Amino acid sequence: MNAPLRLGVAGLGTVGAAVIRILQTKADTLASELGRAVTVTGVTARDRTKDRGCDISTARWFDDAASLAASPDIDVFVELMGGAGDPARSAVEAALTSGKSVITANKALLAAHGQALAALAERQGVALLYEASAAGGIPVIKTLREALSGNSVHKVSGILNGTCNYILTRMEVENLDFRTCLVEAQRLGYAEADPTADIGGFDTANKVAILTSLAFGTEIDSDAIYVEGIASITSLDIRLADELGYRIKLLGVAERTPAGIEQRVHPTMVPKTAPLAQVMGVTNAVTIDADAVGQLTLIGPGAGGDATASAVIGDIAEVAKGGAGPVFRLPAARLEKAPRAAMQRHEGGYYVRLQVLDRKGAFAAIASSMAENSISLESILQKGQLGSKPLLKDTVPSVPVILITYATTETAIRAALDAIDAEGVLDGQPQVIRIER
Amino acid sequence: MNAPLRLGVAGLGTVGAAVIRILQTKADTLASELGRAVTVTGVTARDRTKDRGCDISTARWFDDAASLAASPDIDVFVELMGGAGDPARSAVEAALTSGKSVITANKALLAAHGQALAALAERQGVALLYEASAAGGIPVIKTLREALSGNSVHKVSGILNGTCNYILTRMEVENLDFRTCLVEAQRLGYAEADPTADIGGFDTANKVAILTSLAFGTEIDSDAIYVEGIASITSLDIRLADELGYRIKLLGVAERTPAGIEQRVHPTMVPKTAPLAQVMGVTNAVTIDADAVGQLTLIGPGAGGDATASAVIGDIAEVAKGGAGPVFRLPAARLEKAPRAAMQRHEGGYYVRLQVLDRKGAFAAIASSMAENSISLESILQKGQLGSKPLLKDTVPSVPVILITYATTETAIRAALDAIDAEGVLDGQPQVIRIER
Repeated sequence: MNAPLRLGVAGLGTVGAAVIRILQTKADTLASELGRAVTVTGVTARDRTKDRGCDISTARWFDDAASLAASPDIDVFVELMGGAGDPARSAVEAALTSGKSVITANKALLAAHGQALAALAERQGVALLYEASAAGGIPVIKTLREALSGNSVHKVSGILNGTCNYILTRMEVENLDFRTCLVEAQRLGYAEADPTADIGGFDTANKVAILTSLAFGTEIDSDAIYVEGIASITSLDIRLADELGYRIKLLGVAERTPAGIEQRVHPTMVPKTAPLAQVMGVTNAVTIDADAVGQLTLIGPGAGGDATASAVIGDIAEVAKGGAGPVFRLPAARLEKAPRAAMQRHEGGYYVRLQVLDRKGAFAAIASSMAENSISLESILQKGQLGSKPLLKDTVPSVPVILITYATTETAIRAALDAIDAEGVLDGQPQVIRIER
Repeated sequence: MNAPLRLGVAGLGTVGAAVIRILQTKADTLASELGRAVTVTGVTARDRTKDRGCDISTARWFDDAASLAASPDIDVFVELMGGAGDPARSAVEAALTSGKSVITANKALLAAHGQALAALAERQGVALLYEASAAGGIPVIKTLREALSGNSVHKVSGILNGTCNYILTRMEVENLDFRTCLVEAQRLGYAEADPTADIGGFDTANKVAILTSLAFGTEIDSDAIYVEGIASITSLDIRLADELGYRIKLLGVAERTPAGIEQRVHPTMVPKTAPLAQVMGVTNAVTIDADAVGQLTLIGPGAGGDATASAVIGDIAEVAKGGAGPVFRLPAARLEKAPRAAMQRHEGGYYVRLQVLDRKGAFAAIASSMAENSISLESILQKGQLGSKPLLKDTVPSVPVILITYATTETAIRAALDAIDAEGVLDGQPQVIRIER
């Protein structure tokens, strides 16, 4: 039996407390699996006095993360504080600089500074592991980093935010509007008081930044991510998606295209038969398309103390067994500076919902704008009837018209919609949702 | 850059050829991922002259697997021959004995001799890896062995045989009978000329033996597996399952119960909403239930040259990075001799389809036999009507009656069916299919 692996845990929220509790409960099994004991020798958190439901009496308390990170009494620094900046960033740097391996669940930190931290870890010959940073308990990082070594990945797409999937699921299943479901999610603790990071797609974007680098061996490039949240999705869109054979999911997508690497986060029409469409509630899922393996889909919990702790402990096991190696699959210095594929060049099918005024020539205007931009329509769905009487005198009635296009470009769609809008036949803004097949 | 990793590949079928082709195509990326080159220095197969669509000109040819395994010119022996006995077994032993790591896709070998081979590998301090032995390209072995270190696994259940899932899918989607779909599967190369290993459930059983040991840290115990194949499944069962909200899948299940470890392979009614129910065609899938992570489901290709090669190359990458450690999660000497849970003690819901003769008291006989064995019925479905006129003079008409039970035991079901049969009210054998929730 080798010397024990000594951990310093920074951040004792639900994940940190679960990590410590599980390491204590499973101490014997883990020791015989790993050939050495794992002990928590140091901890730090904002509030020393709080009861966290885990025993930290045998660990030394540190008042700040940087001193814990630099302490000679730990071998591994486990960063569960969160946040792209300090104290997390400087503590992680301090740990790596002093030759310690780092395990982190901090997606914001990696999306912002992952490249530099990876280079530092590799220079120091230590591990920087981050399974918990994307898709919680799902081993997607390990799968991309280790299991798919022989593959060229084409595309990674996933439901990476449980809050959004919960809201979209309730909207669909109970036919509720977005606002009602958001409030419910907040009441149940699935959404934060300020839900922007989740519903705005920014949390998903941080995860996409990490998965992109891993999947394609490219530099982390968070600024290149196109981000659109779910606040504009209406019950009507969800009902229409259902009629058309789709479900609406907030997807994070990383895709290698002839134009470069696409990184995008947006509400997406997913065919009901696709594995990602089956994923309901707070559950996360990731589909990987790669040349040798074909298609893999991993489904599981994306958040929660125990599930995230499961990912952190998987990383601890890897460090205990002595694994280091490149952080993002390839050595940081060899990560490719990939061309960004601009969102305007995105190619795919589109769902377009227009509220069309009942004016003579409205339909013709729509059809010719689409044709002029070389957009072919797969189907047209009209709800209600043009030509019906207005409910109020002097108002022009309008009806929803839904267009499903064959593959076209973002530029063409935008141009066509501008042209249609210029004809004055629309009542309100068009709704545009991309389709993934 | 470290010294190249030198492989000896035994078996050059579709998987072996794909491994060699991918290693050549991806040589540069792999080398920078792993910090060393990977080369195939020796090969062996039955027929030296066959064209395999891969270049083996730079590798030395060996006439038998054992000499390749013992050759000082290789570091790793990649066994892709198959079969529980020789030559695979003695070649793997020779490789381990001479201090080489072994990578194998051979489920039959591991199910029969995995325990002894693991002990040998651990004594020698070398790796014995086998990702390709269960569920093809799906990284289920890595997930159980590494990612879930902090977890106690309750249950692993999976669709582990693509042939069976293909047949059951076509039976359902096209309303065809078993025999027709089997012949189709054979015509398309999804089933072998002698399909017994697949449709009889024996291939799935070998995989269950491996997954059980990994999941629970128990000795491999293939003899304890209850095995039932899919040949008895009729279109009627599939239609009735659909009406009742289920799909019929051949599942391999490893489950820790109060009575011990259950290992079983049988057609199963899976609720349509469960992730495994969504898996159609030749695709495989595994659901893992564990205490920390909750539930994970991994879906992907279970067979095919490239997908299986993807798993083999993942193992090669692990060996290249220097991983060894316990073969079945815990050291072989510490694997628990777990109590077997006898199938008679299995608890769960049951689907029972009886062909009931239109005799006075038939229903009462069924109801009282069930009640006497303390079986509660969740639902009863009767197709057609008792009391109708016989079609032929002197024949007694019969109708299908379907019972869905609440959780009960295998013993109770068997006793109830014996009692019902003794009443002489049945026309033919009852159909019994277990339900998983």
